[in-house]
Amino acid sequence: MASLGIALERVAPGEVDLTLPFRADLTQQHGFLHAGVVTAAMDSACGYAALSLMEPEAADLSVEFKVQLLAPACGAWFRAAGRVVRSGRTLTVVAGELRAFSGEEPAGDGDLVALLAGTMMSVRDRPSLRD
Amino acid sequence: MASLGIALERVAPGEVDLTLPFRADLTQQHGFLHAGVVTAAMDSACGYAALSLMEPEAADLSVEFKVQLLAPACGAWFRAAGRVVRSGRTLTVVAGELRAFSGEEPAGDGDLVALLAGTMMSVRDRPSLRD
Amino acid sequence: MASLGIALERVAPGEVDLTLPFRADLTQQHGFLHAGVVTAAMDSACGYAALSLMEPEAADLSVEFKVQLLAPACGAWFRAAGRVVRSGRTLTVVAGELRAFSGEEPAGDGDLVALLAGTMMSVRDRPSLRD
Amino acid sequence: MASLGIALERVAPGEVDLTLPFRADLTQQHGFLHAGVVTAAMDSACGYAALSLMEPEAADLSVEFKVQLLAPACGAWFRAAGRVVRSGRTLTVVAGELRAFSGEEPAGDGDLVALLAGTMMSVRDRPSLRD
Repeated sequence: MASLGIALERVAPGEVDLTLPFRADLTQQHGFLHAGVVTAAMDSACGYAALSLMEPEAADLSVEFKVQLLAPACGAWFRAAGRVVRSGRTLTVVAGELRAFSGEEPAGDGDLVALLAGTMMSVRDRPSLRD
Repeated sequence: MASLGIALERVAPGEVDLTLPFRADLTQQHGFLHAGVVTAAMDSACGYAALSLMEPEAADLSVEFKVQLLAPACGAWFRAAGRVVRSGRTLTVVAGELRAFSGEEPAGDGDLVALLAGTMMSVRDRPSLRD
Repeated sequence: MASLGIALERVAPGEVDLTLPFRADLTQQHGFLHAGVVTAAMDSACGYAALSLMEPEAADLSVEFKVQLLAPACGAWFRAAGRVVRSGRTLTVVAGELRAFSGEEPAGDGDLVALLAGTMMSVRDRPSLRD
Repeated sequence: MASLGIALERVAPGEVDLTLPFRADLTQQHGFLHAGVVTAAMDSACGYAALSLMEPEAADLSVEFKVQLLAPACGAWFRAAGRVVRSGRTLTVVAGELRAFSGEEPAGDGDLVALLAGTMMSVRDRPSLRD
């Protein structure tokens, strides 16, 4: 997270927004933010969103996610939003999106870049995995 | 790719293997390689595998992928393998996997860490996207 | 569609709602509607939603979809909603959901049973695939 | 299952093959087997494969799956193969495929129609869900 410049913007129960600056050194060959960075930002937002609803002693691990890349990730900065769709005892279903912003005010809603649909698992009985 | 230390190990028509060292600065909070890095390595291997079957003037973009995280990404180094399952005129279906290796010889098959199932799109008519 | 009792409830540009009655002969071993039926309903709703934005001579084919089963599909009837998230020249990104209703008035929003995130391809040059 | 004409062909630990005849009443508008039927067959094969490795008192539920439709599902009959990729205490990762056969001997490997990558959950503590 720190190495990507990701910052926490907003936390609410089951909802987390992260921001991410554009960085030329994190692009793929076409100058867009690499799919791995896009994924990392959305997965992190969703992981924190899931964690915000879990018991204090629990940790969460990503079981699987699907990422849909709708538009090239180009912009001055990005917002990754994670949201809990269904919170269960063991599994949490999450949805994420990444939006691009030009850097000019007013920011508006940005442009939808990518979607994530995933499953997180709550892990309780491994002390070494406590967040 | 370079910033992750990813290196090309093997290229065959429709098949590409990349290697990736463990790096402590690319881990998530539990000391495993971050899901974004795991994804980037598999997506890159699949992208090169798709490109190996495309016409010279084409570029390929990831449309979507699903990643399944089967085991913590811990090890001395990792191999990301990408393979073309079906190559079409517009879309290429790809499969990827990441395996972890302890660093001791003989390497063997390693431990399966993650799977990727994805769709790539061949883009022909945008000169700025030529790989 | 007809063999599942699926009926068209609402069509708007890029949005289609279908309804589906509960049928005991379409359940899996636990008495819930089978995942294949849940998928068929959401895929059909998304397919029609995609078609509603395509040129008259185009047909649409499902390229891939992910289905998340959030709750058992039990109820008196179900609504499958399909929505176009991004409509491109070749590919259309769609999102679907299935909700269960008890059959008592007022219907309300129902209970979320399943989500679909998928990709449709517009096919223009195959006369035999014209919808 | 019965209403689709699905039959059990082979069971081994973690591997199940099902067969499915072509039926004109289960096609979509283009005359191919409907995506819901393709999904149901692969999901069933994967569910049985997961169950083959579970404790006797456990039931399995599909948590999520991704289906990739690689070719039109046309043929005289189809084989859906399900395989356990990773079996855990709570979650089982499965992979499935559907192949089409012309009905003429020798059958060979058939033509790959679709792939499934999914997650099953083992449910132990609900007597009503015992398979």
